[in-house]
Amino acid sequence: MNSSIIRYILGSVLKIEAVLLLLPVMTAVIYREAVGVYYFAVAAFCFLLGLLMTRRKPKTFVFYLKEGCVATSLSWVFLSFFGALPFWLSGEIPSLTDALFETISGFTTTGASILSDVEALSHAALFWRSFTHWIGGMGVLVFLLAIIPLSGGSHINLMRAESPGPSVGKLVPKLKYTARILYIIYFGMTILELLLLVAGRMPFFDALTTTMGTAGTGGFGIKNDSMMGYSAYIQWIVTIFMILFGVNFNAYYLILFHHFKKAFSIEEVRCYLGIIAAAVAIIFFQVLRVYGSAFDALTHAAFQVASIITTTGYSTTDFDLWSQASKTVLVLLMFIGACAGSTGGGIKVSRFVILVKTLGKELTSYIHPKSIKKIKVEGKPVEHEVVRSTNVYFITFMIIFSASVLAVSFEGKDLITNFTAVAATINNIGPGLEMVGPTQNFGLFTPFSKYVLMFDMLAGRLELFPLLILFHPVIWKDLFTQKIIYRKGA
Amino acid sequence: MNSSIIRYILGSVLKIEAVLLLLPVMTAVIYREAVGVYYFAVAAFCFLLGLLMTRRKPKTFVFYLKEGCVATSLSWVFLSFFGALPFWLSGEIPSLTDALFETISGFTTTGASILSDVEALSHAALFWRSFTHWIGGMGVLVFLLAIIPLSGGSHINLMRAESPGPSVGKLVPKLKYTARILYIIYFGMTILELLLLVAGRMPFFDALTTTMGTAGTGGFGIKNDSMMGYSAYIQWIVTIFMILFGVNFNAYYLILFHHFKKAFSIEEVRCYLGIIAAAVAIIFFQVLRVYGSAFDALTHAAFQVASIITTTGYSTTDFDLWSQASKTVLVLLMFIGACAGSTGGGIKVSRFVILVKTLGKELTSYIHPKSIKKIKVEGKPVEHEVVRSTNVYFITFMIIFSASVLAVSFEGKDLITNFTAVAATINNIGPGLEMVGPTQNFGLFTPFSKYVLMFDMLAGRLELFPLLILFHPVIWKDLFTQKIIYRKGA
Repeated sequence: MNSSIIRYILGSVLKIEAVLLLLPVMTAVIYREAVGVYYFAVAAFCFLLGLLMTRRKPKTFVFYLKEGCVATSLSWVFLSFFGALPFWLSGEIPSLTDALFETISGFTTTGASILSDVEALSHAALFWRSFTHWIGGMGVLVFLLAIIPLSGGSHINLMRAESPGPSVGKLVPKLKYTARILYIIYFGMTILELLLLVAGRMPFFDALTTTMGTAGTGGFGIKNDSMMGYSAYIQWIVTIFMILFGVNFNAYYLILFHHFKKAFSIEEVRCYLGIIAAAVAIIFFQVLRVYGSAFDALTHAAFQVASIITTTGYSTTDFDLWSQASKTVLVLLMFIGACAGSTGGGIKVSRFVILVKTLGKELTSYIHPKSIKKIKVEGKPVEHEVVRSTNVYFITFMIIFSASVLAVSFEGKDLITNFTAVAATINNIGPGLEMVGPTQNFGLFTPFSKYVLMFDMLAGRLELFPLLILFHPVIWKDLFTQKIIYRKGA
Repeated sequence: MNSSIIRYILGSVLKIEAVLLLLPVMTAVIYREAVGVYYFAVAAFCFLLGLLMTRRKPKTFVFYLKEGCVATSLSWVFLSFFGALPFWLSGEIPSLTDALFETISGFTTTGASILSDVEALSHAALFWRSFTHWIGGMGVLVFLLAIIPLSGGSHINLMRAESPGPSVGKLVPKLKYTARILYIIYFGMTILELLLLVAGRMPFFDALTTTMGTAGTGGFGIKNDSMMGYSAYIQWIVTIFMILFGVNFNAYYLILFHHFKKAFSIEEVRCYLGIIAAAVAIIFFQVLRVYGSAFDALTHAAFQVASIITTTGYSTTDFDLWSQASKTVLVLLMFIGACAGSTGGGIKVSRFVILVKTLGKELTSYIHPKSIKKIKVEGKPVEHEVVRSTNVYFITFMIIFSASVLAVSFEGKDLITNFTAVAATINNIGPGLEMVGPTQNFGLFTPFSKYVLMFDMLAGRLELFPLLILFHPVIWKDLFTQKIIYRKGA
């Protein structure tokens, strides 16, 4: 294992985090809040530690999938740990476990909170919470790829470890440019939403944090009632942008370069929009009586569906009070998730497209046993390896999911709470049902369950395997062996 | 499609059912119950219809997987439909839908009942209910293989369609003998349990029905409180035999021929016993306080674990009142199910062995991307095709499961009821939690939901694909086209 490059990457990540932490410092200055000093102190510490870790350049910049996974997982753990320190040091979140939960929830764009009263937080803390969503949405290492002059042809391993979806597409031959283009799209759409929200007379701070939460499909709100108190215009803008940020970014790339026909024929995107339409229709008829007016029913149905399928987690109503069929639809959407290559979580629409087509192929093979045909997506045959890894992903997901529900069940909460708490964290959504419903929070879990759910959030965001291999004994042996060789060489 | 052989098989199945129906007739004679006449009438009708359908021998006895699946699925539908008629005609179950539900639940060895007062039924009806479990446990077509002189080398397609588990092992080169050996083991173990129960002073009728329900891992009881009222001795005998009938029958075959070492080294069986031990241990400590005495806690924990993992469904206590962790363990066991090649349902332990090993292999491939090794079970590499079909099975299962929960949710019952009702039927268990808990029944569902659950029971028992392809348009086109050719030829 090339552990020197892992050290170098972790150091770079810390330096980036130091810079990022200056934004909440600025927020504190603007609002004249004393807590800014904690953000500044942590920023300074991160910068120094980062400097120390990147002082000696690694001997070689080549690394493999293994290093990519370890670097990614550890980066996210580092980011979350240091990102949690200001919450804890300032006393705004007195427990370190809770602060860590909140920060992991932020970076993984989950939006599950342990706070019962977010309105009591300082502006700096509110900004940092929402900002972690924005950072986590696109991924930190993708950002690293865009700005740091790493050489060698194995960048794809970093990107593969961090990017959501069954297969990483290179938009352009050079991966560095792909990363840049993605960030430009991300930035542009963020600005657009911000402008539209401000145009709807939303206060600037509210608009900024809401936009960052939408862009990263995170869902931390700055109000205790999430998005309930805002106007229908604002709710619709957020609905539309949640859906847009859940679309595969390849579509935007194609639109950017005027390949409109190709963009609108992406099968995953069409399925994604189809599922949204079907879910809104079902829920609309179910809740029509509750809200009286068709417009209100449509607004709430569309908002909640968009919020759950994109794994954002904002709410405009307490959907835990909805009919059973509506709640069942939402629970199913939790698992489907957004498109691959978007900022959303969940299992991803493209994986389900492959899974359903696999089922169809299997049925055909019962009828014509000798027909060996590959399944096709967008007219092109899907590689056997992609199908296989999609199957394995789904199975691994279910095993981790079941084990987590069991682990959490020991503290005696009801099955729906446990089931949806795990579903809401491993799919990076935020709220679930019952005791973790949209008007509730995760503060009432024991520390043990909180760590289980933190693991799930990271596992969901990093798409399971990069995090799981951290627990493989070989990895630790490798890291250790490498260190000894390195010392001998030095 | 060779539809003449399908007709011939269906006719033979009806003739068998006619003979089987004579046993409840005898029961009615013994207990001097008038309802016997309905069983006799249906038996006579089945026999005549069967005669008519088998009058003309098919031109060829060769058939393929497609025919095997269609013949199997339709056989089960036929069996259930005609088996339901006596319940309905006698007025003991006034609704045809309910009678069909009860009979499908019987043949598929589910044991989910729509009756709130089983003790009101006649002895003939109680016997027939339990007897359907015993018939369904081993499978009717396997029986057909054992006694009917079908020629050709494609019997495996019939057996493959009806037998549980990822791959059908031939115990001996000639499949006909395999089927006979299986029936001998099944019969022997049934007699043994019956003797041990009678020795424990259980009334003979109770012992007979209980034994048939255990052997088929069905779970219909003849008491409203299932097995609660019997002595601890009887409960332990049933516990042990439930576990034994959930073991892969290959193990008994090996023991029968004195291959003891091989029998005890079957990996699936060891995992199965390990899971049972772990589940009993967890629940034992959870319920220790509830029952006071350690013996009672162990009795109830062992009984319920054995009942759920083998998908039998008897109960000695209302486990819906247990702690959340205990209930979560039971829900997980519902999905695991018994061993392949046993009479039990569920996804099967051997499939989970393969799934977990697939996960392990995937992790290794992240660390050593170039290592292409097959996963091994019992030291032998597992064929790629078996791994693939296991993955597809799991995925298909989850898709049907989710769709069923959604379909059932529209009638407004709570999520746990819907979730466990589908889990209890697709895994052929019987009781679930909440409104379908061990002291409740399925009578309160709407007819629509009942048909969804009937589909799930059949899908679970026939391991999904044989039933699913019945819904493939090509099959119907084929059946139709064949008929025209057949008429032309005739």
